[in-house]
Amino acid sequence: MTIERRGTTRRYSDSVAFGDTVYLVEVAQNLDGDISAQTREVLASVEQTLISAGSDKSRLLQVTIYLADITEIGAMNAVWDDWVPEGCAPARACVQAKLASPGYRIEIVVQAAR
Amino acid sequence: MTIERRGTTRRYSDSVAFGDTVYLVEVAQNLDGDISAQTREVLASVEQTLISAGSDKSRLLQVTIYLADITEIGAMNAVWDDWVPEGCAPARACVQAKLASPGYRIEIVVQAAR
Amino acid sequence: MTIERRGTTRRYSDSVAFGDTVYLVEVAQNLDGDISAQTREVLASVEQTLISAGSDKSRLLQVTIYLADITEIGAMNAVWDDWVPEGCAPARACVQAKLASPGYRIEIVVQAAR
Repeated sequence: MTIERRGTTRRYSDSVAFGDTVYLVEVAQNLDGDISAQTREVLASVEQTLISAGSDKSRLLQVTIYLADITEIGAMNAVWDDWVPEGCAPARACVQAKLASPGYRIEIVVQAAR
Repeated sequence: MTIERRGTTRRYSDSVAFGDTVYLVEVAQNLDGDISAQTREVLASVEQTLISAGSDKSRLLQVTIYLADITEIGAMNAVWDDWVPEGCAPARACVQAKLASPGYRIEIVVQAAR
Repeated sequence: MTIERRGTTRRYSDSVAFGDTVYLVEVAQNLDGDISAQTREVLASVEQTLISAGSDKSRLLQVTIYLADITEIGAMNAVWDDWVPEGCAPARACVQAKLASPGYRIEIVVQAAR
């Protein structure tokens, strides 16, 4: 079975699809944004990346959310709850972790079906 | 292929099954428990959720365990080792992370076959 | 569908294969090594474990890298970039987390196709 990679650099791919499953990881590009802005940006990017890979945000399977500061979970959830289509929420983990750039407020790991 | 979600709220699903793979995330409900009690509760809940989704604890594929305090890994492992059926242990990661509620001692992410 | 486990102890398996997907987690055995040495050791081990399970490092789907100290990401990336076959990079998350042994500099979680 063929692996379909998109946005592949030396280090990572923006998305990888294998069979009916799509894998992706997103962080914000605009590091000036607060948690709400970065969550909006990251989820918009997830949405586009899923569509590029033949999936969409109604087909989320499992999501892991890393927050630079877990006390920002309420603000993140407010954006998340608006974004996830009703009845389509994935299994979801959310923990605090120091992220690769001090400007990142959120990093999100997604597995979705297509 | 259909996605089967169980226990779906606005924010997350208790489990998501897609094809032959089941995804779930568990934390304890009783936050008064120490690491042993929370691990027992979480693993009992994983067991029930797997059965509801057509899997069981002998079919674990990959598990990630987040502990609020990594020094509690010994106490967690004592419960884990008793719980996993012999010969059925998954690939397993275990790291420390600050969790969403200060009362959580453990959060566990599971992928299983069915 | 059968689950194929390799290197199975009471606690974990070195790898688990199910259908066309392989799951594995690696840490270093030699805890005297710095981040470069441990990354080289861990990635060599990933490579061997993938081959044992009928996959190889050109078939990585999703990788999560936990670093004991996120400021070591540059040194880790230097080893990583050399190791990943060109055009085959996975979706990749990298965050800081306190690991199970104080000697561990890196823990890596891999999903690959076979």
